[in-house]
Amino acid sequence: MALPVTPALTTDCVVLDAAGRVLLIRRGNPPFQGQYALPGGFVDVGETVEDACRRELKEETGLTVGALKLIGVYSDPKRDPRGHTCSVAFLAHVDAAEPKAGDDAAAAAWVKVWRGETLAFDHAQILHDAERLAAAD
Amino acid sequence: MALPVTPALTTDCVVLDAAGRVLLIRRGNPPFQGQYALPGGFVDVGETVEDACRRELKEETGLTVGALKLIGVYSDPKRDPRGHTCSVAFLAHVDAAEPKAGDDAAAAAWVKVWRGETLAFDHAQILHDAERLAAAD
Repeated sequence: MALPVTPALTTDCVVLDAAGRVLLIRRGNPPFQGQYALPGGFVDVGETVEDACRRELKEETGLTVGALKLIGVYSDPKRDPRGHTCSVAFLAHVDAAEPKAGDDAAAAAWVKVWRGETLAFDHAQILHDAERLAAAD
Repeated sequence: MALPVTPALTTDCVVLDAAGRVLLIRRGNPPFQGQYALPGGFVDVGETVEDACRRELKEETGLTVGALKLIGVYSDPKRDPRGHTCSVAFLAHVDAAEPKAGDDAAAAAWVKVWRGETLAFDHAQILHDAERLAAAD
């Protein structure tokens, strides 16, 4: 049985360190090239969203994390100019680590004050929701 | 820009009534034809997962519900024999309503004791998670 065409499935990861900083990349490719974004990407057929989240985080920043906590699911048809994507966003914590940019990321860094930055996609909304979730822990 | 092929996006809805019963359908088509399942189905390109959840619930049971609460995201590559699907599951409550089977549903009914039943897909796991979420409210 062939599966119907649906929105494309993506995942994004909000990683916070012990100082409350968030791990962001600079996008190396369009759309939003050069802007800050959360590490993430498309889910491959045959992998879970959690595995995809860890894979993309590793590819783009070199980091590995422990437990992933579901933040939310973001499926506004206009969230991605390439077409309809749906992102499953996760929260993770690390004590300290030095990110190393790779794959689609032109740079990767810990950012203390992200509210003054222009973030790609709906990543500002995801970060807001992540901080609320982290505060409730 | 063409989007890559990813797992197909689906949604399922756990509806509980005031008596703690859960709304289940009997599947009218393969896979799991004739078995109990949660109302749900594939997300269309151009609609949010929340809108898809309400649409499928309406099509299969005739019911409309208020707030949807995210239960979880289920993306095991083996969860659906047709191919890799990822379901975003939501919880909703209704005081009382008479379901009316339609679309893919051969029947729709309130079920008090679902644990003795064989449920399609990973819907038993979704129901377990939904009841834990509902108890924590």
